[in-house]
Amino acid sequence: MSALPPSVRGVPASPNRRTIVVQRPLGRIPVGNVQPQVEGGQFPAVAVVDEEFTISAEVFREGHDAVNATVVLTDPTGAEHHYAMTCTNVGLSRWEAVVCADRVGPWTYRVEGWSDSYATWDHDATIKVAADVDTQLMLEEGARVLERAVSEVDRPERSQLLLREAIERLRNKSLPTAERLGAGTAPEVHRELTARPLRDMVSPSPEYGLRVERHRALYGAWYEFFPRSEGCHLDEGTGKWVTGTLRTAAARLPAVARMGFDVIYLTPIHPIGQTNRKGPNNSLDADPDDPGSPYAIGSEHGGHDAIEPTLGTFADFDAFVAEAERLGLEVALDLALQCSPDHPWVHEHPEWFTTRADGSIAYAENPPKKYQDIYPLNFDNDPAGIYAEVRRVVEVWISHGVKLFRVDNPHTKPVEFWQWLIADVAESHPDVIWLAEAFTRPAMMAMLAKVGFQQSYTYYAWRNQKWELEEYCRELAGTAAAYMRPSFWPTTHDILTPYMQYGGPAAWKIRAAVAATLVPTYGIYAGYELLESVPRPGVEEQIDNEKYQFKNRRWEDYEPGGPREGQLWMADYLARINEIRRLHPALHWLRNLRFHSADDENVIVYSKRRLVGAQDDTIIVVANLDPHTTRETWVHLDMPALGLDWQAGFVAKDLITGNSWQWGQHNFVRVGREGEPVHIIHVRRF
Amino acid sequence: MSALPPSVRGVPASPNRRTIVVQRPLGRIPVGNVQPQVEGGQFPAVAVVDEEFTISAEVFREGHDAVNATVVLTDPTGAEHHYAMTCTNVGLSRWEAVVCADRVGPWTYRVEGWSDSYATWDHDATIKVAADVDTQLMLEEGARVLERAVSEVDRPERSQLLLREAIERLRNKSLPTAERLGAGTAPEVHRELTARPLRDMVSPSPEYGLRVERHRALYGAWYEFFPRSEGCHLDEGTGKWVTGTLRTAAARLPAVARMGFDVIYLTPIHPIGQTNRKGPNNSLDADPDDPGSPYAIGSEHGGHDAIEPTLGTFADFDAFVAEAERLGLEVALDLALQCSPDHPWVHEHPEWFTTRADGSIAYAENPPKKYQDIYPLNFDNDPAGIYAEVRRVVEVWISHGVKLFRVDNPHTKPVEFWQWLIADVAESHPDVIWLAEAFTRPAMMAMLAKVGFQQSYTYYAWRNQKWELEEYCRELAGTAAAYMRPSFWPTTHDILTPYMQYGGPAAWKIRAAVAATLVPTYGIYAGYELLESVPRPGVEEQIDNEKYQFKNRRWEDYEPGGPREGQLWMADYLARINEIRRLHPALHWLRNLRFHSADDENVIVYSKRRLVGAQDDTIIVVANLDPHTTRETWVHLDMPALGLDWQAGFVAKDLITGNSWQWGQHNFVRVGREGEPVHIIHVRRF
Repeated sequence: MSALPPSVRGVPASPNRRTIVVQRPLGRIPVGNVQPQVEGGQFPAVAVVDEEFTISAEVFREGHDAVNATVVLTDPTGAEHHYAMTCTNVGLSRWEAVVCADRVGPWTYRVEGWSDSYATWDHDATIKVAADVDTQLMLEEGARVLERAVSEVDRPERSQLLLREAIERLRNKSLPTAERLGAGTAPEVHRELTARPLRDMVSPSPEYGLRVERHRALYGAWYEFFPRSEGCHLDEGTGKWVTGTLRTAAARLPAVARMGFDVIYLTPIHPIGQTNRKGPNNSLDADPDDPGSPYAIGSEHGGHDAIEPTLGTFADFDAFVAEAERLGLEVALDLALQCSPDHPWVHEHPEWFTTRADGSIAYAENPPKKYQDIYPLNFDNDPAGIYAEVRRVVEVWISHGVKLFRVDNPHTKPVEFWQWLIADVAESHPDVIWLAEAFTRPAMMAMLAKVGFQQSYTYYAWRNQKWELEEYCRELAGTAAAYMRPSFWPTTHDILTPYMQYGGPAAWKIRAAVAATLVPTYGIYAGYELLESVPRPGVEEQIDNEKYQFKNRRWEDYEPGGPREGQLWMADYLARINEIRRLHPALHWLRNLRFHSADDENVIVYSKRRLVGAQDDTIIVVANLDPHTTRETWVHLDMPALGLDWQAGFVAKDLITGNSWQWGQHNFVRVGREGEPVHIIHVRRF
Repeated sequence: MSALPPSVRGVPASPNRRTIVVQRPLGRIPVGNVQPQVEGGQFPAVAVVDEEFTISAEVFREGHDAVNATVVLTDPTGAEHHYAMTCTNVGLSRWEAVVCADRVGPWTYRVEGWSDSYATWDHDATIKVAADVDTQLMLEEGARVLERAVSEVDRPERSQLLLREAIERLRNKSLPTAERLGAGTAPEVHRELTARPLRDMVSPSPEYGLRVERHRALYGAWYEFFPRSEGCHLDEGTGKWVTGTLRTAAARLPAVARMGFDVIYLTPIHPIGQTNRKGPNNSLDADPDDPGSPYAIGSEHGGHDAIEPTLGTFADFDAFVAEAERLGLEVALDLALQCSPDHPWVHEHPEWFTTRADGSIAYAENPPKKYQDIYPLNFDNDPAGIYAEVRRVVEVWISHGVKLFRVDNPHTKPVEFWQWLIADVAESHPDVIWLAEAFTRPAMMAMLAKVGFQQSYTYYAWRNQKWELEEYCRELAGTAAAYMRPSFWPTTHDILTPYMQYGGPAAWKIRAAVAATLVPTYGIYAGYELLESVPRPGVEEQIDNEKYQFKNRRWEDYEPGGPREGQLWMADYLARINEIRRLHPALHWLRNLRFHSADDENVIVYSKRRLVGAQDDTIIVVANLDPHTTRETWVHLDMPALGLDWQAGFVAKDLITGNSWQWGQHNFVRVGREGEPVHIIHVRRF
């Protein structure tokens, strides 16, 4: 087990905080404002394997001599990878390089500023020789710079010869001056010195952390279901519900896989408490046959390390995981750290809960409301004990093949606990991914990401307008991408916004297609295929919520020969979107998102582009966010963002309908509920 | 001598850069995004003694319990000063406190987040008792929280009694419930727990550096002159110039002091080289009698540690400093680290210069232009030697009473040299102040400030429009104030912008008054009193520049009985402005700048406010930036920024003209060249 947080060990969080801060020694060539920089470097930046991202810095020096800069990525083995930087804004001294890490683990990055003696000579000599000032001197100085370039930098034999020849010609007084200068400033000499530069006065920035994780941390399509609903049915004879099990739920996996999802996420599968069990629609008077909320965890059958007996056994769970794996699905488990009053921890470790002045254990409450079926954990009485126990529980599930944890309400537990837990698990299981369900204030959401959560639910469900989606996604794909990876969910079992309640089928298409293309990770809650849009009155969640009762969606009715055969068109739509996602590398990334403009305030236009070897994959999405009306508008493309000249034309192939159009910078579109509300366009270059 | 920079010592600048970065342990209550934070804490923030500034952070916690926060300033002796923070944006978890340091030296600051058990109880108990939920329990829990407040926090006897009485009443079952609750939630109990809070789970942010310096680092009016011009005259007999000296220049000091300036800044006073000496208007053919540029430093008479013999001796310099001191003026010296070819260093330390391939020493050049009267220093051949020599030179002048150095072109010397020099001098002379003359790109200017320069020349001379002044000053008084202190100069001996060339008397008034009131430090170059607005053709500097020749301004002509008696009205204007600055504490600070609006795009309106004890000093400036036209416009005041209600009225007294008006939120003004172009208004409250 890695070291517990300082507060748990009883030592101050900043052990050196009495030390007067000393200035960073600057180095010979100043390097400032390195970006990304998460909380000034207190937390690592994040990336997944092969993710391209930009590292920038202000690099400058005294006087007029040429400066240059390199990004150095250091991989977990200590090997260094150099990337040449480019000055993108001379006035602001801004240098940039696009970099990318090729394996999982703790990396670091720094920017090295350096004095570019060759560029200095090239600049000065070109001007001075043209003006016949110090001509012989400048030619000799060029020869000396190139001599150092040969002797001080490792380079192949052929490159050495190239430079030696240039040196000789620079000094050859029998040649015309222009030819001698030209030998030193030739394009091939420039290329050689760009590939293997002569770097003087190399001055490194501080070293910043970079947490590199597997691609699933950034990219994936998730499908959520309640296993007990999959295969449940009302027994006509007894009038009672027969529960679905892990075995019957596994039978649903092929359909989920056929729709093209990557992850199957299960709400909690642990034993459910009896005390104060909730009934349908969150009622307080449960019938003895009501299954209870799977979030009221713990009974005589065990706690977070156990499986609700009516769902099956660990053997059934292992079979479920194996079937998912066979179908190319990863299993995500819900980690909801709260207890029913019947949880074994309540009896064995009452110190893990809050004891009131009257000696009773505190329920969850939001004064004056009480949630008497739930005891929240108290991490402060015995942090070391509770940390170790949760760590043990997590290891149980990892040992049964779980690598994804969707954490329920992480913002109601100490953030430093997550920081420790995620880091400790990563030491032995670097492929484990944590998704934070923190629908809360921005500072908390961001901090959970900074301390380790690989993914975060977002405000997507409540961002329905073009302006707010653009603003939000510019943040998510921009500065926030350095520490947080968004997951977009149009609905969940807890969220059914008015847009989805009233938008009709077009709304359900739009919100899925936009989620699936704006960001690389999105998720769907079971029943999305059926447009389940009826809320519990006065609450923005489904009526007859599966949290409290069984839900038989009668998937078999939609199968060939069934009474509703062919009516599951939304499942086909999701399948098509997921297929497009798989086929198009452009959609596998976050930071490549670019917005374009449309005259209509409801039509959003954005693109993603990714070069894979020789393949230039570019997708443009045109979506009418108004589910009630078909809209016609002009769309204006930022052509360079597509890798095209402003005057270029291309074939726009809509991957939803198969239609193709001849497009350029300005294009007329008709999009909305009467046809398809979303175009997902593949750019076919001439 | 303090440790040399790593690059000078031949060690990497980031000694630990191979260490994989570990996340900062977060602490129990997350504290993020502490501001100010200079380059993520790599450099200290700055303030002067008694300067009020805001420290902010995001502070939040898991769940619903109340959080609170404290700023802890640690002074150079290690004593801690606590400031209660206020939540200024609940949604963004933003907390702030205005703090202020009371002595010069290296301070630090941190933000401590903590769990506020009393506030949690107060919130929950108020709601639950009103709903009669857990009433007895809540009253008892209140008593227990207050018991801890008594036993765990030092407080005066009287405060202890207050809390003990509240505890007793909370538990007194013979009292009505409302009275018992009221005893625990009473205003005086709140006040006591605000003054001496019960802080649980105290979680500190990292410790950030704070360089606290004397007030002159932020506030002062500077006057620049060339000492040889003060008292020089053309000898009618010989037809030759007789130089001014340190003695004759000292005779001008009373007039400078009468105008109300705080600092007298001298261009270099060192021996001037003969080789390639420049003649009038930067010509290459100097007459033997031309005095040469004081920036071509070094001759047979010595270098940077010597005085040009024609100016006088060290005894004369000491007398000059003594006279200045008598008049309340501090002396600022020019530190121009460059050499004439005749400088002793050239012979004694050729390694401190750049040797070309032909063995010659390199002149300054901007290819293909050459400046053959100047050899730039090369800091890279013998950095330890040159560092020590400059340090010695600086000490010479400090030992003669100089505490202010105006550094000529610091951006042409290694930045790390300044970082070392300024820190090394500060160790023994914490009252020495450095002004950077770095008219260069923003990144370099900012970095020079971050590594130690207390003051920076700015782009003020080229910011003449309202929108650009507002934008620039919002930056300077906002985020940049954490590391850089601006000095505003309408002109210098090198700068005469078109605005000043063509704007006429109104321009000269406007630019001085606005400089003097927008920021606390501003400066004037001699001759401003005479509106010397004629440029050398094609160049934005004065014709017959004093850098290359004597200039006799015949100040005596303006004295009583002189031929121009009474014509020195601009000197009176400057004196009035400086008097207003001295009398009004509001103008002694930078971060208190607030902009207001005016309908006319040429009329700028801003205010500054400072509370000193019971005195509320507020100044509003209304300036017409168009020197050619009188303008009438409505001015709209941000009344809360003035400490006034939106509906309030006040007497606006113009400190320039003495006029008074009855003002409120909206006011009509007439301002411009036909009257006074700038109102400097004192707010007189009812």
